[in-house]
Amino acid sequence: MKSEEKIMSSPSRILCERLRQRIVSADEAAAMIPRGANVGMSGFTGAGYPKAVPGALANRIRTLNTEGGQPFRINIWTGASTAPELDGVLAEVDGIEMRLPFQSDPICRDRINSGKMEYVDYHLSEVSQYAWSGFLGKMDIALIEVAGIREDGSLIPSSSIGNNKTWIEQADKIILEVNSRQNAKLEGMHDIYYGTALPPNRKPIMLTDPADRIGEHYLSCPIDKVIAVVETDAPDRNSPFKSPDDVSKRIAGHILDFFQREIEIGRLPKELLPIQSGVGNIPNAVLEGLDAGPFKNLTAFTEVIQDGMLKMLKSGTLKVASATAFSLSPDGIKEFDTNIDLYRDKIILRQQDISNHPELARRLGIIAMNGLIEADIYGNVNSTHIMGTRMMNGIGGSGDFARNGYLSIFVSPSTAKNGAISSIVPMVSHVDHTEHDVKIIVTEQGLADLRGLSPRQRAHAIISNCAHPDFKPALMDYYERALHSGRGQHTPHLLEEALSWHCRYEQTGRM
Amino acid sequence: MKSEEKIMSSPSRILCERLRQRIVSADEAAAMIPRGANVGMSGFTGAGYPKAVPGALANRIRTLNTEGGQPFRINIWTGASTAPELDGVLAEVDGIEMRLPFQSDPICRDRINSGKMEYVDYHLSEVSQYAWSGFLGKMDIALIEVAGIREDGSLIPSSSIGNNKTWIEQADKIILEVNSRQNAKLEGMHDIYYGTALPPNRKPIMLTDPADRIGEHYLSCPIDKVIAVVETDAPDRNSPFKSPDDVSKRIAGHILDFFQREIEIGRLPKELLPIQSGVGNIPNAVLEGLDAGPFKNLTAFTEVIQDGMLKMLKSGTLKVASATAFSLSPDGIKEFDTNIDLYRDKIILRQQDISNHPELARRLGIIAMNGLIEADIYGNVNSTHIMGTRMMNGIGGSGDFARNGYLSIFVSPSTAKNGAISSIVPMVSHVDHTEHDVKIIVTEQGLADLRGLSPRQRAHAIISNCAHPDFKPALMDYYERALHSGRGQHTPHLLEEALSWHCRYEQTGRM
Repeated sequence: MKSEEKIMSSPSRILCERLRQRIVSADEAAAMIPRGANVGMSGFTGAGYPKAVPGALANRIRTLNTEGGQPFRINIWTGASTAPELDGVLAEVDGIEMRLPFQSDPICRDRINSGKMEYVDYHLSEVSQYAWSGFLGKMDIALIEVAGIREDGSLIPSSSIGNNKTWIEQADKIILEVNSRQNAKLEGMHDIYYGTALPPNRKPIMLTDPADRIGEHYLSCPIDKVIAVVETDAPDRNSPFKSPDDVSKRIAGHILDFFQREIEIGRLPKELLPIQSGVGNIPNAVLEGLDAGPFKNLTAFTEVIQDGMLKMLKSGTLKVASATAFSLSPDGIKEFDTNIDLYRDKIILRQQDISNHPELARRLGIIAMNGLIEADIYGNVNSTHIMGTRMMNGIGGSGDFARNGYLSIFVSPSTAKNGAISSIVPMVSHVDHTEHDVKIIVTEQGLADLRGLSPRQRAHAIISNCAHPDFKPALMDYYERALHSGRGQHTPHLLEEALSWHCRYEQTGRM
Repeated sequence: MKSEEKIMSSPSRILCERLRQRIVSADEAAAMIPRGANVGMSGFTGAGYPKAVPGALANRIRTLNTEGGQPFRINIWTGASTAPELDGVLAEVDGIEMRLPFQSDPICRDRINSGKMEYVDYHLSEVSQYAWSGFLGKMDIALIEVAGIREDGSLIPSSSIGNNKTWIEQADKIILEVNSRQNAKLEGMHDIYYGTALPPNRKPIMLTDPADRIGEHYLSCPIDKVIAVVETDAPDRNSPFKSPDDVSKRIAGHILDFFQREIEIGRLPKELLPIQSGVGNIPNAVLEGLDAGPFKNLTAFTEVIQDGMLKMLKSGTLKVASATAFSLSPDGIKEFDTNIDLYRDKIILRQQDISNHPELARRLGIIAMNGLIEADIYGNVNSTHIMGTRMMNGIGGSGDFARNGYLSIFVSPSTAKNGAISSIVPMVSHVDHTEHDVKIIVTEQGLADLRGLSPRQRAHAIISNCAHPDFKPALMDYYERALHSGRGQHTPHLLEEALSWHCRYEQTGRM
């Protein structure tokens, strides 16, 4: 009998007797987290984060800090972004000293950009390796949401896995949140791979298809390290998706046309290659576009299952999706819960060091589709910084997939702020993806296929195909003047003007 | 009996009777290369490039182009850099339309930077995949130097492998140069892996140790595709290394201290992890420093075998070195030829899509050591562009190793041009390695360990430890003013000043 059935017929999700003894309130658990601790928390794109203890800890910090004395802060390592109930409440009480590897919380963002919080923005595949290698310091506490605890103490993962395996292994002490709101039928959808190691002891990862299972359904957990178990009953906090607008539909259309051309030429198989899609309205619109197209039996090897992927799985456009987390809208959660029997065999959740692993991205030949903040005329992409200085969210997994995948596609509307900002600029104000790694840029204006092009050829393709008509003449004027400036003509630039569009925006509110 | 013994007792290195029939002069072979052809040539860091046909082709082009009419140009794809006898002579007659994926020739460089030649600068691991995927177009001719041809038509590779396997497979027609100056005892040192494929048909590469052999000693070659065989007798063109100067020795010293601390803390094994070392005097000095240190039984998984690695193999500091090419000084070649029996079991030459493979770099946990042109205070590295516009050489394999390896170390003297240029600048003028990928920066001033640091913390470490004292106050002044400018404080910048150091250098000759 699966734990699922036992759990459904049991008053509690905690079937392990020893761990039932450790049930405490969220306040009691929060009191066990010491000042300055490195805390590894679960959570990835608003799914599977602890719902109760962070809030209780925030209350404790607020009280302590109003009493004066040395401020109480902790360092928070997660899978990726979480939710207001974690990042928001702890940032609000100034309780976070250092945050890694990704966030998207407005209060956090404000603290980071006002210099009040340290933030280290890592490739998501690498975080686990960094924790193991030791330079981040010792992890004191792991605070992990799970969907249930089995009789032997092993854990049924929740709606995300992220770095949970590593946090549980690395932490001195573990606090578990058991969330009965998570669907008990999640059990069996996870695939936890215990074959990782530090070099020189690494072995090939024997996964050759997104549908392959290479691990266990459950997280192993040393019972002796568990200092508290907290019962919760709260939903993941995910935002609704906007219906695709005209801009998103045009972007999706350009990508679909491109895929069809590549299939006709024989450069992509008709089932494409495994798709990775970033989180957000535009990637979701691209998925909806794919679903409306002629494709069948596609696969996804990605970080996150969004609403669009559920639709594709239901329609048969997609036959399997591998990810590390859900990121569903409230409607998406309802659809998933209602039809979970349809989805459970088609979705595999893995830890993020596997979902984003360079070895697998290269082997499977991922088609990576991610958003950009700005791209320059030579194909460098800024995914993280507004006007070069202010962190938006972070690089996330985009680098894992864009560098090592088979095709890297970056998408954005050609303008932002009602046309005040051009997404195509002479020189990006920050580089997350270099000219070497960016193969396709798409805006609603069109698609620039940069493969095999020199920088000068790329400039023509990007300005002609992707820039908004309002900015196209000024971009071409910059390029032409740079080309004839007497400086190097491999990558023509006027360095004294290269960032002037950003400066102008900061001074006048318009590029 | 190995071909080697037959070859040594034979008047020719061409044991295949059918291919002996196709021996022609270099001029005759050059005449077989059509206008506009895509030509895949052998050659990697001055080793194993064709010695005769490129020169004959250059003569032909010079004659044709002085006759007027449409210019005769070809597109040249190689492994990496070659030599004046290939890149130099063909660039001099304006015979190259497009060049990829790496070059270091002064005439080529001048053509690229004056806008007369297209140049596409790729990660070296990816070139083979790009050729297979088809977007570079069809390869018309492969022009490959080999050390000998066996009776069955299979080829004994020369002093580099690079992309030769792919060129031979992809090209419509093949021209072979058989160079009797290459040591016949190279036979057996190569390992050509025939397990590669395009996705979705890729399999795990079962290599877990730099010493592992996973392939064949010989390049398969379809005899029917061979249209010409040219006999040559000429040495590889490699430059002498400078003896390590004081700056190089200090850089090496900082790296050795770092390794020893990491070993003491238990973060690196005492045999380190497989070393990758870029080409040049400073990397060579680091190797000499390692050789003088306490290390034993190290391994290398790298692109190029330099003189320093021969010394380490001889002394036992290094037990095995895997690479795709040699890059030896004339003295190094003499040492190698004299003691080849000592070296041949300790050196494995692989194709560059294996030597630089992301899967293997990650699995083996490479320690990547590469040069930089400039780094900025936040840890972004420019490896390719002088003052943002002029191509120096190219990114080479540095991205393959830095992104996917275990530790990425970038080295440079803290100043260039007799102190007129600071290698540490407020913002780099071009980004090849992003803040996410750069872990350690070393100059003769010191070492900045950026692991686990936020951008602001990195700025302090880099300015304090790596900048030259002549530039340190100005860097700190820039950082402090940026920090208090009211802009974002995650990555503080003054965009209107960020590239002013480069502009000042262009105007005044000094940063």
